Amino acid sequence: MSSRLNVGAIGLGRLGRVYAQDLAQRVPNARLVAVADQKAELAEQFAKELDVPKWYQSHQDLLADPDVEAVAVVTSTSTHKEVVLDAVRNGKAVFCEKPIAMSLEEAREMLETVAAAGVFFQPGFQRRFDAGYVAAKKQIEAGVIGTPVVLTSTSRDPFRPPLEFCDPKVSGGLIADMGIHDFDVARMFMGDVKSVYAVGCTLAYPEMKSVGDIDNAIVSMVFESGALGAVHLSRNAVFGYDIRAEIWGTKGSLQIGYYRQTPILIMTKEGITHDVVPYFMERFESAYLAQIQDFVSKVQHGGEPAVTGADAMAAMRVSLAATRSLHGGRIVEI
Amino acid sequence: MSSRLNVGAIGLGRLGRVYAQDLAQRVPNARLVAVADQKAELAEQFAKELDVPKWYQSHQDLLADPDVEAVAVVTSTSTHKEVVLDAVRNGKAVFCEKPIAMSLEEAREMLETVAAAGVFFQPGFQRRFDAGYVAAKKQIEAGVIGTPVVLTSTSRDPFRPPLEFCDPKVSGGLIADMGIHDFDVARMFMGDVKSVYAVGCTLAYPEMKSVGDIDNAIVSMVFESGALGAVHLSRNAVFGYDIRAEIWGTKGSLQIGYYRQTPILIMTKEGITHDVVPYFMERFESAYLAQIQDFVSKVQHGGEPAVTGADAMAAMRVSLAATRSLHGGRIVEI
Amino acid sequence: MSSRLNVGAIGLGRLGRVYAQDLAQRVPNARLVAVADQKAELAEQFAKELDVPKWYQSHQDLLADPDVEAVAVVTSTSTHKEVVLDAVRNGKAVFCEKPIAMSLEEAREMLETVAAAGVFFQPGFQRRFDAGYVAAKKQIEAGVIGTPVVLTSTSRDPFRPPLEFCDPKVSGGLIADMGIHDFDVARMFMGDVKSVYAVGCTLAYPEMKSVGDIDNAIVSMVFESGALGAVHLSRNAVFGYDIRAEIWGTKGSLQIGYYRQTPILIMTKEGITHDVVPYFMERFESAYLAQIQDFVSKVQHGGEPAVTGADAMAAMRVSLAATRSLHGGRIVEI
Amino acid sequence: MSSRLNVGAIGLGRLGRVYAQDLAQRVPNARLVAVADQKAELAEQFAKELDVPKWYQSHQDLLADPDVEAVAVVTSTSTHKEVVLDAVRNGKAVFCEKPIAMSLEEAREMLETVAAAGVFFQPGFQRRFDAGYVAAKKQIEAGVIGTPVVLTSTSRDPFRPPLEFCDPKVSGGLIADMGIHDFDVARMFMGDVKSVYAVGCTLAYPEMKSVGDIDNAIVSMVFESGALGAVHLSRNAVFGYDIRAEIWGTKGSLQIGYYRQTPILIMTKEGITHDVVPYFMERFESAYLAQIQDFVSKVQHGGEPAVTGADAMAAMRVSLAATRSLHGGRIVEI
Repeated sequence: MSSRLNVGAIGLGRLGRVYAQDLAQRVPNARLVAVADQKAELAEQFAKELDVPKWYQSHQDLLADPDVEAVAVVTSTSTHKEVVLDAVRNGKAVFCEKPIAMSLEEAREMLETVAAAGVFFQPGFQRRFDAGYVAAKKQIEAGVIGTPVVLTSTSRDPFRPPLEFCDPKVSGGLIADMGIHDFDVARMFMGDVKSVYAVGCTLAYPEMKSVGDIDNAIVSMVFESGALGAVHLSRNAVFGYDIRAEIWGTKGSLQIGYYRQTPILIMTKEGITHDVVPYFMERFESAYLAQIQDFVSKVQHGGEPAVTGADAMAAMRVSLAATRSLHGGRIVEI
Repeated sequence: MSSRLNVGAIGLGRLGRVYAQDLAQRVPNARLVAVADQKAELAEQFAKELDVPKWYQSHQDLLADPDVEAVAVVTSTSTHKEVVLDAVRNGKAVFCEKPIAMSLEEAREMLETVAAAGVFFQPGFQRRFDAGYVAAKKQIEAGVIGTPVVLTSTSRDPFRPPLEFCDPKVSGGLIADMGIHDFDVARMFMGDVKSVYAVGCTLAYPEMKSVGDIDNAIVSMVFESGALGAVHLSRNAVFGYDIRAEIWGTKGSLQIGYYRQTPILIMTKEGITHDVVPYFMERFESAYLAQIQDFVSKVQHGGEPAVTGADAMAAMRVSLAATRSLHGGRIVEI
Repeated sequence: MSSRLNVGAIGLGRLGRVYAQDLAQRVPNARLVAVADQKAELAEQFAKELDVPKWYQSHQDLLADPDVEAVAVVTSTSTHKEVVLDAVRNGKAVFCEKPIAMSLEEAREMLETVAAAGVFFQPGFQRRFDAGYVAAKKQIEAGVIGTPVVLTSTSRDPFRPPLEFCDPKVSGGLIADMGIHDFDVARMFMGDVKSVYAVGCTLAYPEMKSVGDIDNAIVSMVFESGALGAVHLSRNAVFGYDIRAEIWGTKGSLQIGYYRQTPILIMTKEGITHDVVPYFMERFESAYLAQIQDFVSKVQHGGEPAVTGADAMAAMRVSLAATRSLHGGRIVEI
Repeated sequence: MSSRLNVGAIGLGRLGRVYAQDLAQRVPNARLVAVADQKAELAEQFAKELDVPKWYQSHQDLLADPDVEAVAVVTSTSTHKEVVLDAVRNGKAVFCEKPIAMSLEEAREMLETVAAAGVFFQPGFQRRFDAGYVAAKKQIEAGVIGTPVVLTSTSRDPFRPPLEFCDPKVSGGLIADMGIHDFDVARMFMGDVKSVYAVGCTLAYPEMKSVGDIDNAIVSMVFESGALGAVHLSRNAVFGYDIRAEIWGTKGSLQIGYYRQTPILIMTKEGITHDVVPYFMERFESAYLAQIQDFVSKVQHGGEPAVTGADAMAAMRVSLAATRSLHGGRIVEI
């Protein structure tokens, strides 16, 4: 029994509940001992349903609980800095969903505090734990495609968020909100980014102009190595959820991604049809689980975080540069 | 808390552990309260690892436990009759992995006892809970392919079992051991089988002749409706695990199945390559979970079992007839 | 100029025109010097359109033409014997579309005459010239899949023929009419057939019962080598034309076939859709051309026919045995 | 006979021979009456092999032939202007392979002369005649994907050309040489291009630096409509020839392209493998034929050219702008 890590979950929104449920039921070496959410009744109900011993409204109360050894922070981005700093002060190991902060300044302050305290800190980038991306990384390291020279990374949502969440003041805008995963993937495969140029449009949902956001973007990149990249972002993959990457090397190439959700083809006079992965929860269910398992395991048994705070800051830096490029209509060096 | 079903797991072999682990960690409305296995230390170790309160060597002791409301029976087939009858006598709801018995006589006696006792009894046929088969059933019921007129169902293993498990006295032979899933699928889509004709060979693993088993078989079928079917069974799909079905109707057709396990393509001078689902655990992990969830849910909230004892007997009857056809070199009416 | 073979085409039905057009325009070392068809105006019109120097109503007149060195016989099956024997008597090299005769007796008489005359004779089995089947044969011969142990060969039409052509007295019935290609493929990959068992139904087009034909059949086979096979035939692949084969060996397997005709995917809220090869002309256009090119080339430069009269007889023998099996409801040894 | 168009072919290099052979053998309403090539013996040999009545060393001699009604100009780009102007002066209808000229100035002079003379002039852009691109255009015009908002167009060669052909002074450089097809496709689906930004690298074949060329490029585009695009160009798709396009609209999307050449899958312990279209001749054989058939048909029966001189100039303009962007490291307005 003592071999389990006692974890608390802070924030029980859509994604927060996924992590909390995984911690409660699917991570054998973790025990979900407490949950916290600003909506007290949500915390209570969730705790009762999943047999979680304690629930809190305030994250400070949860962090003051000596039973809690580590926390998963899945609150809204604007509160990440406060919650993470509080957790660090209480000596808890921290998993923090991306983006870790609203600005590079916030992020820098957080990481300095983390470093000074010497606590374990891991930002959330679940694609790094997806079977496809993991397999690609292994193949590249094994030299199967030679030296990577071009990357494309694609993220397309099946619909736009509600307008209030599109507001760049809340979301950071399409490039920061969606693209940060692609920029992290880009760095994982290709190394650091040297310059970016972004173009965008608002043609699929003209109403998004009212809040100042775009619905499609293409970001072209030059890496420090001289290699090239392009990130494609969209809110109108109306048929389903389209997450892909291609890495082209000197000896071969890799394609990551798939569309079909259910292993069935329907063949009628209208043609051959299959369904599509509907959205991110279906696409990355296993990756979210693998990520939080990895966090628990590393905290327990030691080792460097699979994703570091420096990785999170580097991806933020690229996404902010690409956003500036979009607004300035110019190439931005990083 | 009172809303959970208290379940015991009997038999902790490879598949037994899957069910037990699902019941312990992934079926929210179940509580795994006890496990039993002839190897006492295996039961104890498993119970400790998964926080299962009680463990037993003898299935009778588990069945005598008044805390246990339902049991999953995943022992070797030769013990199914005894364990199930004991469970029924103790008034437990019963899930029993396929095949439910060694012979039609055994099965008949078990089902009569179940019926007399009025307990809930569900045989294990996990393909009925696989997303592909479920989607196909829905599409057919919605009339998308019209009336089904031809079925093919395919089961191909990546390798042969150890010779001692190939012995038809233990396994029932290839057709009974593997084919029973296909015969159940056939009945699910096409209704009852009228006649069968089976051919077999032992060309991939000649050493299987020494125990009297075959490594490949094709069973052609005529259904009561007049429709046609073919079941393909093999032990030498050396590239991976090949589970498929096609249903051809008057207005269209369906294909169920997939090969690729990891969403990555590798493209080199050697061509385009992808990996393959390696074996049944990877292929049917979700289906095993959905099946035991359905069992727990039905026992708790009432309703007919998704698969009945009569279904299990009907599939057995077809597989025994096909085995007789193989040995007799003749068409067998059912 | 003298390096071209002067060929005559007899029979200008749908398939006859394909061969004639290929000979006129796409076989560089052939010259189509004459065409013949019972419908004189059809022969004349075709000749004028394609600049063919001579046209005839009677095949005898074409065969009497000393300019003609070789002929493609694509008349109705019931006339094959007469036309081929006339051609042989005139010393012409003969390509004869499948099936070469109405009965094994006819076929035997034709082949004996061919052998006695020593003329070049090649029956039409275009699948042997399809890129997929050719590549599979090469891979098998290279040992890539080890020893073949199971074959499935599938032929599914998108619709039934007009009822008058379904009449088994004309067509030979579904098994002989469609299946002969599959039996030839089976022999090409697996060797000679030892026994067959056929089941059939008439559920998609009940009106076919009025002429005594079936719309679906499954023929299971045992080969002389002990290997197994199944042939699937259907008239109701309503979505398109479905021609496939699988060969399963001791070290791997091969799948031949494809559905998509146009390289485009359409992705909308209804799912991902693509079109399908509509029918045999689209599927086998290249194979028909490769076949007649091979015939011309072999006649010119010598060499054994790629398909022999003995091959044609063997495939006929299997299809007739399977038809007897269907009608007798029994296993038939060959 | 009089219903055929008499065509001459000028230039019998690799692609020139394809057009000439198509005109000789596969375009029923054309007659190839003459060929010309600077290498006289090549022209003579080709003419003899394909029964072409006349052959010339000088294009002027061919153009002076009153039997010639139309010409296909497939000489090296540096001679296009001279040959086309000579053809126009002789009143011949002209098909001219892309790029039609070395510079926009040359192209402008050619098109003004063509316009003044009123002769039929069609530049070669065979992708417009490929079944996939044609089907996509139809679907878009039918409204299936709504309004197009993003395009990606991909051209990847399996290897680099010999260094002497890589020299930008000869080839125009990667972007002009390969990309012009993609820019034409971009305009066909999305309309005119407003601005471009190109990045490039020389990492796969460092030796290309010696001649001043690159081996990979990404060109991001903004269209006049506000829509976005990206063109991916590469010389190191070492596994085969990779030609694709995606068009994303407000209601759905389309993907054009395919990899598999031969309809066969090989399944062994190494995974599932298939081959790939090796190069442009295999990929676009049908498109080249359809294009020259369309040219012949339009010249005979009237109608606007499917691709106009203005289209060719517009694609050139984009490719030159993208080349300037690459060299200047800046965004270029068109």
